[in-house]
Amino acid sequence: MRTRAAVALEAGKPLQVMEVNLDGPKAGEVLVEIKATGLCHTDEFTRSGADPEGIFPTILGHEGAGVVLECGPGVTSLKPGDHVIPLYTPECRECEYCLHPKTNLCQSIRETQGRGVMPDGTSRFSMLDGTPIYHYMGCSTFANHTVMPEIALAKVREDAPFDKICYIGCGVTTGIGAVINTAKVEIGSRAIVFGLGGIGLNVIQGLRMAGADQIVGVDLNPAKAEMARRFGMTDFVNPSEVEGDLVPHLVRLTKGGADYTFDATGNVGVMRTALEAAHKGWGESIIIGVAPAGAEISTRPFQLVTGRSWRGTAFGGARGRTDVPKIVDWYMDRKIEIDPMITHVLTLDQINDGFDLMHKGESIRAVVVY
Amino acid sequence: MRTRAAVALEAGKPLQVMEVNLDGPKAGEVLVEIKATGLCHTDEFTRSGADPEGIFPTILGHEGAGVVLECGPGVTSLKPGDHVIPLYTPECRECEYCLHPKTNLCQSIRETQGRGVMPDGTSRFSMLDGTPIYHYMGCSTFANHTVMPEIALAKVREDAPFDKICYIGCGVTTGIGAVINTAKVEIGSRAIVFGLGGIGLNVIQGLRMAGADQIVGVDLNPAKAEMARRFGMTDFVNPSEVEGDLVPHLVRLTKGGADYTFDATGNVGVMRTALEAAHKGWGESIIIGVAPAGAEISTRPFQLVTGRSWRGTAFGGARGRTDVPKIVDWYMDRKIEIDPMITHVLTLDQINDGFDLMHKGESIRAVVVY
Ligand SMILES: NC(=O)c1ccc[n+]([C@@H]2O[C@H](COP(=O)([O-])OP(=O)(O)OC[C@H]3O[C@@H](n4cnc5c(N)ncnc54)[C@H](O)[C@@H]3O)[C@@H](O)[C@H]2O)c1
Ligand SMILES: NC(=O)c1ccc[n+]([C@@H]2O[C@H](COP(=O)([O-])OP(=O)(O)OC[C@H]3O[C@@H](n4cnc5c(N)ncnc54)[C@H](O)[C@@H]3O)[C@@H](O)[C@H]2O)c1
Repeated sequence: MRTRAAVALEAGKPLQVMEVNLDGPKAGEVLVEIKATGLCHTDEFTRSGADPEGIFPTILGHEGAGVVLECGPGVTSLKPGDHVIPLYTPECRECEYCLHPKTNLCQSIRETQGRGVMPDGTSRFSMLDGTPIYHYMGCSTFANHTVMPEIALAKVREDAPFDKICYIGCGVTTGIGAVINTAKVEIGSRAIVFGLGGIGLNVIQGLRMAGADQIVGVDLNPAKAEMARRFGMTDFVNPSEVEGDLVPHLVRLTKGGADYTFDATGNVGVMRTALEAAHKGWGESIIIGVAPAGAEISTRPFQLVTGRSWRGTAFGGARGRTDVPKIVDWYMDRKIEIDPMITHVLTLDQINDGFDLMHKGESIRAVVVY
Repeated sequence: MRTRAAVALEAGKPLQVMEVNLDGPKAGEVLVEIKATGLCHTDEFTRSGADPEGIFPTILGHEGAGVVLECGPGVTSLKPGDHVIPLYTPECRECEYCLHPKTNLCQSIRETQGRGVMPDGTSRFSMLDGTPIYHYMGCSTFANHTVMPEIALAKVREDAPFDKICYIGCGVTTGIGAVINTAKVEIGSRAIVFGLGGIGLNVIQGLRMAGADQIVGVDLNPAKAEMARRFGMTDFVNPSEVEGDLVPHLVRLTKGGADYTFDATGNVGVMRTALEAAHKGWGESIIIGVAPAGAEISTRPFQLVTGRSWRGTAFGGARGRTDVPKIVDWYMDRKIEIDPMITHVLTLDQINDGFDLMHKGESIRAVVVY
């Protein structure tokens, strides 16, 4: 079949919207009509050429929602008409990782996904001249139709709006999951969130759900404070307005350091500050942000010997097929909010404007609706 | 009263054995006759002048065992004749830290202990000319008699030999506790221990007690392998004999990386190797070693985002008054071994020979018996 897609032909160039060929689903695969997709920093990281593992031409996008159109042979858990959210971290429930209690990083199709192809080693997408186009993070939601492995699709309820729940495919789950699955924040905790963008706001609403007593938000952009307050932030700190070092300021504000700190900036200097602002004896610091290629984090080992822990999270520690449907329920039950974070709605033809908004810091989430 | 002590008069100089004055115990304090003391790297760190917080003159030593001679006013949990192990990490059971479930770092007397004085701000030791001598880590076990706060003494059974259980005052508890209290290693785990000295050997016997399936030991000194095997090491790796990078070698050996890794070298490069040799998704790396002043650890944040945790431990996460008596029981019940690790027994007059043995890597533990 043919479908419309925003194709990244080369690193650093704007996406080009065009017709492409899409082969039907093979064994264990599913054809999905994408109804809406968010634009995330990771897409931009690859589009811009900053991602050393980026391969082109490719169809980016990994934060989508849609409807199953057709199932390949052997698919048992999905049928045409099912509503689904694509998972860049699949859940096979059979590999060593899925069977381990401490991780969500299913490895069953990691190698082919990293090479931009389906598990059989080939791509379903091609240019009209036949040149293959690579898949991206196993999702490629910047195409109106895509083919995905069954294990990389979470089945969700049918009354949930696509243009909102697409955001659960990455940002919402990453932020809330970092609090619930990775940090396992207890009621009454004090926390600091660095970076109040699309991820940080979801960390904040995760902390509110978890019953944190103090939720400090840190951002260089004071315009981010208002929205963060709405999601549960109790104190705002603009590092450029703090006299002297930021760490002792935050330690004082949290009466000895925070029980949990989260980096949602991707800046390695901020990651160090986040660790050192965690409470001596028991503070845990969780890295969510993705740093530039080659950047390193550092600290004195004394920070760890005196009881701080340094950890990280990918996709919020969520097991997608199990956890994503629950988060959709939480949204529908108003336990969490998504609507105010979707600041811009675009057509596929406007997708490059979405990346401009991201760079200007004007959007929290721009969503393309097909 | 007067007692004999090995005094560190100046940084970098050998200790000098001499008579010193010792004032009796004040309120909440206890006079202890030290019967035996181990020589630990931390004593040498301060003696040598490498410790930026070292203050002189001082009486070093923090790994001892002895008998209570006299109790100051208000002491309720000890009486003359009780056998005790001094605790450089006290346990007041009342401060914010003691009441927190995740830490052993009692802070109730930290500030005065750091300044080399008793909680009332004064020292009990002085030269015969009246010059005050500082306490060290709240213990000063290189004196035949010392005064300590009640909350810094663990009462232990009376049939346990002083010249062995003194080692429980630091090395044994640090190594075993890192496994049991900090890492909470599960039966069947794979582990790597870097550094097979006095701490590393105790990590190894802790892993054996915890039921680890694979216990890899890493040391540049092949002479350390034999003793480590005796304590439970299953595989030995000498980094200087590995072709290519050490991390992939260790990852292969542990079939994907270790569930738990421990640094017991104090080398920041080794700490990085230990983190990166931990299993993707769930591996935890625990820093025990104390790095040179100012040295920093580094890694790419991706190591943490993909599921590794970086942590540290002080005194093996043990709450001294509660846990140390149990470890003495384990020794008496032959659940753990100490005797083969006490490689040298010295008199107080020979104490500087003990530091020479440490530098030559010839001793595991040298113990001074009074
Ligand atoms: N680990 C994961 O699974 C995962 C998933 C998705 C995104 N991410 C990463 O999370 C990070 C945040 O993503 P986002 O969409 O929220 O980005 P964003 O640009 O919307 O938000 C980042 C925020 O950080 C603030 N900031 C930047 N530098 C700062 C500094 N030095 N101090 C304080 N604040 C600073 C910015 O003003 C902005 O508000 C990115 O690095 C992204 O790649 C990680
Ligand atoms: N965290 C705590 O509470 C605590 C308590 C006591 C001691 N320590 C620290 O633990 C560390 C170990 O103490 P120890 O008494 O066992 O010392 P040790 O000298 O007896 O043992 C260190 C071992 O590490 C080996 N080693 C050194 N560099 C190495 C390298 N690059 N690669 C592989 N092996 C290497 C040495 O050959 C030696 O066998 C020290 O840094 C000490 O200060 C920490």
